[in-house]
Amino acid sequence: MSVSPPDQPAFVLVRPQMGENIGAAARAMFNFGLTQMRVTAPRDGWPNERAVALASGAGRILDNAGIFNTTRAALREADYIYATTARPRELTKPVLTPERAMAQARALIDSGQRVAVLFGPERAGLENDDIAPADAIISVPVNPDFPSLNLAQCVLLVAYEWRRQGDTTPPEIIEFAKTRFASGLETEKLGDHFEERLTQAGFFHPPDKIPHMKTNLRNMLGRLPLTLSDVQTFHGMLRQFARWQSKSASASSAPETDND
Amino acid sequence: MSVSPPDQPAFVLVRPQMGENIGAAARAMFNFGLTQMRVTAPRDGWPNERAVALASGAGRILDNAGIFNTTRAALREADYIYATTARPRELTKPVLTPERAMAQARALIDSGQRVAVLFGPERAGLENDDIAPADAIISVPVNPDFPSLNLAQCVLLVAYEWRRQGDTTPPEIIEFAKTRFASGLETEKLGDHFEERLTQAGFFHPPDKIPHMKTNLRNMLGRLPLTLSDVQTFHGMLRQFARWQSKSASASSAPETDND
Repeated sequence: MSVSPPDQPAFVLVRPQMGENIGAAARAMFNFGLTQMRVTAPRDGWPNERAVALASGAGRILDNAGIFNTTRAALREADYIYATTARPRELTKPVLTPERAMAQARALIDSGQRVAVLFGPERAGLENDDIAPADAIISVPVNPDFPSLNLAQCVLLVAYEWRRQGDTTPPEIIEFAKTRFASGLETEKLGDHFEERLTQAGFFHPPDKIPHMKTNLRNMLGRLPLTLSDVQTFHGMLRQFARWQSKSASASSAPETDND
Repeated sequence: MSVSPPDQPAFVLVRPQMGENIGAAARAMFNFGLTQMRVTAPRDGWPNERAVALASGAGRILDNAGIFNTTRAALREADYIYATTARPRELTKPVLTPERAMAQARALIDSGQRVAVLFGPERAGLENDDIAPADAIISVPVNPDFPSLNLAQCVLLVAYEWRRQGDTTPPEIIEFAKTRFASGLETEKLGDHFEERLTQAGFFHPPDKIPHMKTNLRNMLGRLPLTLSDVQTFHGMLRQFARWQSKSASASSAPETDND
């Protein structure tokens, strides 16, 4: 039994059947930093070799799991209890999305409450007697045509929402491989270089379209999220096109000289 | 190959190894309403019996899956491509949470773009050559001490975010089993009943605390989310306590009468 402070919810697996699923649930919890597992009346006893095999890397979740004969015993230290269910029950109870529930759980835990989340056995899910002591129900909004989530998947989604609600990962970052975005000046100079070479190459045609074509070119370069490294690559390409042209120009002029 | 309009992203499994994982990925997709699977170069060929066995209930995702020899071929019709990776790469690329990515994917699809999401093979994940054509990277913010998500779990989380971004499920509802919340008047009358019986029972004591005790009682009844059915249950309890008391009062008064 863990004595760590309850800075996270306990996940209670109620009468789980297959060891594989207990192990997979342990992995799913630890993927999102959760370590407080409780198991009530595991069908195949405890410890469970298959659970250990499947938990690889998250074995310490199983080592520290609390094992109880009844759900009531597993909930003795829980102040606020969520029960996960797929189908509606004949019980008056708030029904929350995982998102709302885990946001609420964070607030409860921040105010010193001990939170538990119940997960039912694989086949039938929680019975109404398991759900009665729960303060609220968590229901994952799945495709109504195919609502069957397995135990470890349900654990994964609730654990994911727990972490997401407290996550400080920026929703978007740019990973720069040893570079940075090109500055306005660098982009402008690249535009100048493009214009110069393209003018030499006879790209801008017919004359009355030239201003429009040049504006489009500048607009494209402005819009693309070019890095300094991209800009340097383009400069290199433009120089190489010029070299290529001058080589073939001198090659073709050489025979002409011979013929002169 | 599906000809349905691309109102959802295609999930592309790149060189998946185990049929079980392909089947589990199909289930995870269909749990959240996604049906457009593409598979490139599955290690064990196609069709795959184990994939079919594991997909039970989501078999039509496999039946309709597009099978390609190369990732490039699988992406031929994609306008915007996300690649899922766990570890950082030496590639300049935006890195998004699943949440942000799927919100963006909805916006792209709403504007007629075709979106694909790449998932790498089980062991090593996507190679840099697979990632290069991607517009952006999706990275699930996992526990850095235990970041290993399996293929089907990664598919599940991205599919969940896809659905969540477009989901209209209220974050909280109250499921009422043939009842409704008690009205203010009903709660007030219950308070009156409590006060009456508790006064008879001698609960309010000492006299100087009585106003405070009564306020606390009213506050508790106000705060608890009592249903009409709960209120009726409490009225029944209070009546029964009164009956119990009067029964024992008359029983104890009877012998006294005999003794008179």
